[in-house]
Amino acid sequence: MGVVGMKKSDIYYWRSIALKMAEQVQKAIAPLVGKEEAGEIIKMGVDGTPTKLIDLVAEDETINVLENTGRPVTLISEEIGYLKIGEGDSEPQIIFVVDPLDGTTNAIKNIPFYGISIAIAEYHSSDVLPSLNDVKMGFVKNFATDDIYEAMRGHGAYLNDERIKPSGQESLEESSMGAFIYGTKFPKIDNICRIIRRMRILGSVALELSYVANGAYDAFMDLRGNLRVVDIAASKLIVEEAGGIVTTERGDPLNGLLNVKERTSLIAAGNRQLHQEIMKALEVI
Amino acid sequence: MGVVGMKKSDIYYWRSIALKMAEQVQKAIAPLVGKEEAGEIIKMGVDGTPTKLIDLVAEDETINVLENTGRPVTLISEEIGYLKIGEGDSEPQIIFVVDPLDGTTNAIKNIPFYGISIAIAEYHSSDVLPSLNDVKMGFVKNFATDDIYEAMRGHGAYLNDERIKPSGQESLEESSMGAFIYGTKFPKIDNICRIIRRMRILGSVALELSYVANGAYDAFMDLRGNLRVVDIAASKLIVEEAGGIVTTERGDPLNGLLNVKERTSLIAAGNRQLHQEIMKALEVI
Repeated sequence: MGVVGMKKSDIYYWRSIALKMAEQVQKAIAPLVGKEEAGEIIKMGVDGTPTKLIDLVAEDETINVLENTGRPVTLISEEIGYLKIGEGDSEPQIIFVVDPLDGTTNAIKNIPFYGISIAIAEYHSSDVLPSLNDVKMGFVKNFATDDIYEAMRGHGAYLNDERIKPSGQESLEESSMGAFIYGTKFPKIDNICRIIRRMRILGSVALELSYVANGAYDAFMDLRGNLRVVDIAASKLIVEEAGGIVTTERGDPLNGLLNVKERTSLIAAGNRQLHQEIMKALEVI
Repeated sequence: MGVVGMKKSDIYYWRSIALKMAEQVQKAIAPLVGKEEAGEIIKMGVDGTPTKLIDLVAEDETINVLENTGRPVTLISEEIGYLKIGEGDSEPQIIFVVDPLDGTTNAIKNIPFYGISIAIAEYHSSDVLPSLNDVKMGFVKNFATDDIYEAMRGHGAYLNDERIKPSGQESLEESSMGAFIYGTKFPKIDNICRIIRRMRILGSVALELSYVANGAYDAFMDLRGNLRVVDIAASKLIVEEAGGIVTTERGDPLNGLLNVKERTSLIAAGNRQLHQEIMKALEVI
């Protein structure tokens, strides 16, 4: 092990908290999966999007797990925005960036594709604002299957404790690709639709981006322009540690701030050749 | 019970065979799920599409279950085409129309969305060729979740033995829709992509069409024009028995022959209003 800046004991500790969080949130929402009341709107999130009952239950459990550590930690999460937990005046060194339930609609309808995204970032108050580059560990769990994707910066990516690598498929014509292409005016999407072998939209970006890490998808893109940077904080690290590529829709490095208001589009691929093919088809290069 | 033409004891008998088939095929393919060798091409199917190892294992088990009944029955299935099982010179009265594994790619990649489609049709040799109208019972099982959708003509539709009904959502803007829209030149798909609330492509038409029956999807369409009629023989009955609508891409009744070479496009919706909205957006009416 040995992530730059973090003590080995801290790494193990916070990893165990992340895994516990995934387990506890999964248990907390289980009674609501497939239930209509899970989708009732309870309040509005900090960015004005409505919070559903099942999202609130997931976030409450997330906060609960962090409070029970008794250690100072910052939580960044969709509904609550920013929450400092524990004692002390200074900014906590550890930031949990959590999407407690990605794929809410699937969970409500009992479509087996929803889960949690947890990124752990390290922050020093003398630094600039924390960004995706500060993420040291990432965890994405599919609650419907118990699959856990995990990565630690500099140490590779894992699915259920087995090392994973992305697809070597270089041809767009032969690719299976996750592609959020509705509700956008992004041009030339037709080119992809015409060329691609298989297109999928499963409804959980964190899980689908993680699919690029083990080659379940050859590539993934979300061109809606409203993807929260915090929601891909874990899965971006997982893909990169596996050896895949994640960029903006123009092929630029993606390094947004860890802030619930930051939004983006993205293109991910298992290898550089396929990434280029996608950008060529979209005519952005 | 009491499906027109079939004795009550026969209905129970063939239903039990269908459920047994689902269970046995699920067991047979389980060791191959998520394995690369599952995708190895073993031979070519009757319509020229390649047969993968996992498809072959699924079909062999399907045949096995029917042979073990010792009763005359016809099997119509993608890889084998048409197979008469059991003694006698005349055409068997019972036809099993089976897609032993729908969502093959998902199964190979361990994406939790693949299963079996089983339709039971009744045929009298004096009749014209058997078509979708002759289907009396339909079963669709998701092997990753054990969910079973089921319908009997004239007796409603069920998910895991509970009666289901489709979505009452009438507005396209508010709809969640499964939509196979890649690899096609069908015009005006952009209209749907722009309007729709949520679009999904999960990769198993039989399961996704069944999702219309219980409202997990408000609507579903496949506009690729190469969907096998036999692959939706069960799920079409399930949607219709739940109270939903399934038509061709032009809104015409869908009643193809039970023949592996028959292909179609389709539009399904939970209610007539939404079905009209979709056809208006596609500008086919």
